[in-house]
Amino acid sequence: MKKIVNLSLLTLGMALLSAQTKEDSIQFNRISTEILNNGKGYTELRELTKGIGNRLSGSEAYEKSVKWAEQKLREAGADKVWLQEVIIPVWERGKESLHIKTSNGSWKSLKMLSLGNSEGTNGKDISGEIIMVRSLEEYDRLPAEKVKDKIVFFNYPFNQEHVQTFLAYREAGAYRRNAASLTAKKGGKFAIIRSLSSAFDDVPHTGAMRYEDNTSKIPAVAIGNTTADELEALLKNQTITAKLNSNCGMKGEKRSHSVIGEITGKKDQSVIVVGGHLDSWDVGEGAHDDGSGIVQSIEVLRTFKKLGIKNNHTIRAVCFANEENGTKGGKQYGKVTQENNEKHLFAIESDAGGFSPRGISLEMDDVKRNQIKSWGNLFLPYGVYNFEGKYSGSDIAPLHDMGVPTAELVPDPQRYFDIHHTAEDTFEKVNRRELLLGATVMTQLIYMIDKNW
Amino acid sequence: MKKIVNLSLLTLGMALLSAQTKEDSIQFNRISTEILNNGKGYTELRELTKGIGNRLSGSEAYEKSVKWAEQKLREAGADKVWLQEVIIPVWERGKESLHIKTSNGSWKSLKMLSLGNSEGTNGKDISGEIIMVRSLEEYDRLPAEKVKDKIVFFNYPFNQEHVQTFLAYREAGAYRRNAASLTAKKGGKFAIIRSLSSAFDDVPHTGAMRYEDNTSKIPAVAIGNTTADELEALLKNQTITAKLNSNCGMKGEKRSHSVIGEITGKKDQSVIVVGGHLDSWDVGEGAHDDGSGIVQSIEVLRTFKKLGIKNNHTIRAVCFANEENGTKGGKQYGKVTQENNEKHLFAIESDAGGFSPRGISLEMDDVKRNQIKSWGNLFLPYGVYNFEGKYSGSDIAPLHDMGVPTAELVPDPQRYFDIHHTAEDTFEKVNRRELLLGATVMTQLIYMIDKNW
Repeated sequence: MKKIVNLSLLTLGMALLSAQTKEDSIQFNRISTEILNNGKGYTELRELTKGIGNRLSGSEAYEKSVKWAEQKLREAGADKVWLQEVIIPVWERGKESLHIKTSNGSWKSLKMLSLGNSEGTNGKDISGEIIMVRSLEEYDRLPAEKVKDKIVFFNYPFNQEHVQTFLAYREAGAYRRNAASLTAKKGGKFAIIRSLSSAFDDVPHTGAMRYEDNTSKIPAVAIGNTTADELEALLKNQTITAKLNSNCGMKGEKRSHSVIGEITGKKDQSVIVVGGHLDSWDVGEGAHDDGSGIVQSIEVLRTFKKLGIKNNHTIRAVCFANEENGTKGGKQYGKVTQENNEKHLFAIESDAGGFSPRGISLEMDDVKRNQIKSWGNLFLPYGVYNFEGKYSGSDIAPLHDMGVPTAELVPDPQRYFDIHHTAEDTFEKVNRRELLLGATVMTQLIYMIDKNW
Repeated sequence: MKKIVNLSLLTLGMALLSAQTKEDSIQFNRISTEILNNGKGYTELRELTKGIGNRLSGSEAYEKSVKWAEQKLREAGADKVWLQEVIIPVWERGKESLHIKTSNGSWKSLKMLSLGNSEGTNGKDISGEIIMVRSLEEYDRLPAEKVKDKIVFFNYPFNQEHVQTFLAYREAGAYRRNAASLTAKKGGKFAIIRSLSSAFDDVPHTGAMRYEDNTSKIPAVAIGNTTADELEALLKNQTITAKLNSNCGMKGEKRSHSVIGEITGKKDQSVIVVGGHLDSWDVGEGAHDDGSGIVQSIEVLRTFKKLGIKNNHTIRAVCFANEENGTKGGKQYGKVTQENNEKHLFAIESDAGGFSPRGISLEMDDVKRNQIKSWGNLFLPYGVYNFEGKYSGSDIAPLHDMGVPTAELVPDPQRYFDIHHTAEDTFEKVNRRELLLGATVMTQLIYMIDKNW
C-alpha cells in the first residue's frame, strides 16, 4: 500500500512538474510574442543613438541621455523612477594627431584614437623613434636604455583563433590597460598599441587605460589593424619617428546620475536588478556598447507591465552611469544598496552587444546555478543553450561582492570586437530581432527568478 | 573471472572512446585554428561579390562565376576540377515600373521588383483598380467578379513572432509562389505582394514564383514593407489605381554549368558532397545567398589539403547552377550520379546565409541521425548545439530522393530575411568570423563522416 501511495505521489509530482513547465513555457511564449511583435527597444535605441549619439560620462550628451532614460522608464510603466547621484570622473579627448616620418623624410598622418583616461601632450608635439615589441614578454626583456626617450609600439595582435572572442579580448586587455605605465617605467615618451580588434580594417578602438601609482602619466594611443600592419612593415627596414599632439586628459570630477526605474514587488520589496550602462565612449553611437543593454532593460519592465505579470519581488531596471571609464555608477549603486540594507535577490546585466542571445553566464553558488540550468529546456527554443560562463557584468560586480547572485546575457560574440569602442558602433550595426530576442531572454529569466526565488 | 574480464574490456572500451574523442577534439581544433587564422573564404567572397556581382542563371556574370569557381577549386588543391553541363532557364528582368494613382489624381512611382520567373507587360502599361486581401483565406472567399480586371494586393505580413524566421518565410511562401496564378484564375490583371521580409524597411524582395498549368501568365511584383504599409493606409479611404510596365520574362533555355572539384578518396571513391549554389538573383551581390555557401564549400577542400587530412572517401565540393529559378543544377547532378551509378555517402549544403553557425539539420534515418547527434559535444565549443532540424538543401534534394543522407548548415536565422533576394544582400553584410566558423563546422562534420562512415 505504502508503495502505491509513494508511486502515486511521485506520479502526481511529475504531473505537477509537467503542468508547471507547461505554464512556464506558455509564459515564455507570451513574453517572446509580445516583444518580437511590439517591442520598443529598437525604436528607443534609434532615439538614443541617432537622437543623442555617443555619451561619455561628463558630456552634455550623457546628461541628455539621463533625461531620456528617465522618460522611457516612465513610459514603460515603472511604478517609481529616480536618479541616483554619482560623482564621475570627466575625461575629454580634444584634438589629437599622430604622424610618422619615414626614411624619405616626409610626415604622414595616421588614423588613431587616444585611449580613454590617457593624458595628452597639452597641445605640444612629442616625438621620438618608434621601437616595436610583439608581446609583454618581449617588452620585459628590453633593457631600460633601449626604451628611454623612445615611442613603444605594442604590436600584439588580437588572437583570431578563439571561437569565444572575449578570450582574445581578455588576453589583449593588458596592452591597452598597461602600455603607458610600462613605457613610462623604462623612460619612454608615449605608447602606441595595435587596437583590440577582430576586424581586418583600419578602425582604431579606444577603451580605458590606467596609470599605475608613481609612474609618470604619459600618453597612450591606439591604431587600427591596417595601420598597425603598415607600421610593422615599415619598421622592418627603417627607423621611424612618431610625433603625437593631443589635448586629452582628465578634467576633474562632476556630479551626475544613474537612472533607475522599478515595478514594486507584490509580495515583498526584495530586488531583482536588470541593467546596462547608459554612458558610452566618445566615438560612434554606443549602440551595441551599451545602448542595447539599456533598451533591453527598459523592455523587461515594459513587458511585465504590458502582459500584467504580477511580480512577487521588485523588478528594477538600472541604467548605470560611467561604466566605461570608472564604473562609478555600479560602485555607487552597491554602496547605496549596502547603506539602505536593501535585500537583492539577483542581478543581470546586458553589456556584450545586442546580438542574438546564446546563453546566460552565471556567477553564483552551484545550487542556484544548477536551478537555473534546470530551466534550460525552456530557453532552448529561443536559441539559449549556454549556461557555462561564470562571470557577470562590471556594473553589478559590487552587488556580487555583497553576495548577490549575478549573471550576464551572452549574445553571439563574433561581431562585437569588430566595432567595440569605435566610430563604427552605430545603430545600423544592430539588428531589430537580435536585440529584441536578448530582451526576451532577460524577461523570461527574470520571470522565472521572480517566481521561484 | 569473467566479470573482471568484462569489466576490463569495458574500461578499455571507455579509455579507447575517450582517446578517440580526444583525437577528434584535437582535429576539430586544428581545423578551426586553420580556418579562423588562414581561411580564404572571406577574401574569395569579396572577389565573387565585388568582382563579379550578382549572377543570375543565363547572365554573363554567371558564366564569369563559373570560370572563377573553377579557378578557386584548383587553388584550393582539388585533385580534379570539372564543369557539369546543365540546361538552364533564362529569365530576364529588363525595365520595370509600378505607379499608383491616388484620389487626388497624381501618379506616384513605387519601389518594386518583379518576382523571378514572372512574365511582364511587354513594355505596355497595364492598369486597374487595386483590391487588397490579407490572407489566402480572404482571397478564396472573394467572388471572381470582384477580382475581374483588378490588381490584387496580397498584403500578408511576415510573421515576426517566430523565433525561427524560416517558419515565417515558409508560411509566407505561398503568396510569392501563387499570387499570379490565383489572381489570373479570377480574371485579375496582375498581382502585388508584400515582400517576404523581416525588415521594417522599404526594400523589395524578389524570389521565384511559378505559373500553374492552364492559367494565364500574368505578372507578379513585390513591394517593400514600408510601401506596403503606405498602400494599405491609402486603401482605407480611397480607390487606388495601379499601373505596371515591365519587360521581364522567360527567354528560353541555355547551356551552362555547375562547377565541381574533389579530393579523391584514399580508401574508396564513394562520395561526400559539400555544396552551395553559384547563381544568385539579379539584384544585390548574392553574398549571403549563396556566395557564402560557395566559398565555405571551397574552404572545406582547401582545409583538408592544407592540414594533410587523408580522406578515406572522395570529398567533393559542388557549386550548383540555377538554384534560384529552376534548381536545374541540383537535378542534373542527381541525374548524372544515377547514370554513373556513383555511390554517395552523404551530402551537406550551406544555403541559409553566412551567419554564425548554430546547428546542423539532418535529413536521414534515425541510426545515422543519432550517430551524428552523439558527436554533439565535439561541436559545442564551436557554437553548434542544434541537431533537431529534419530538412536539407534544395540542390541536394535529388540525392536525398535517391537515399543519400543529407544535411544543411544551420546558421543564426535572425538577419537572413532582412536581406534575402534583395539589393541589400551585399558583401558588407557578411562577417568574416561568422562565415569562416560556418566553413569550420562543415569541415569538422565531413571529417567525422569521412572517418566513421
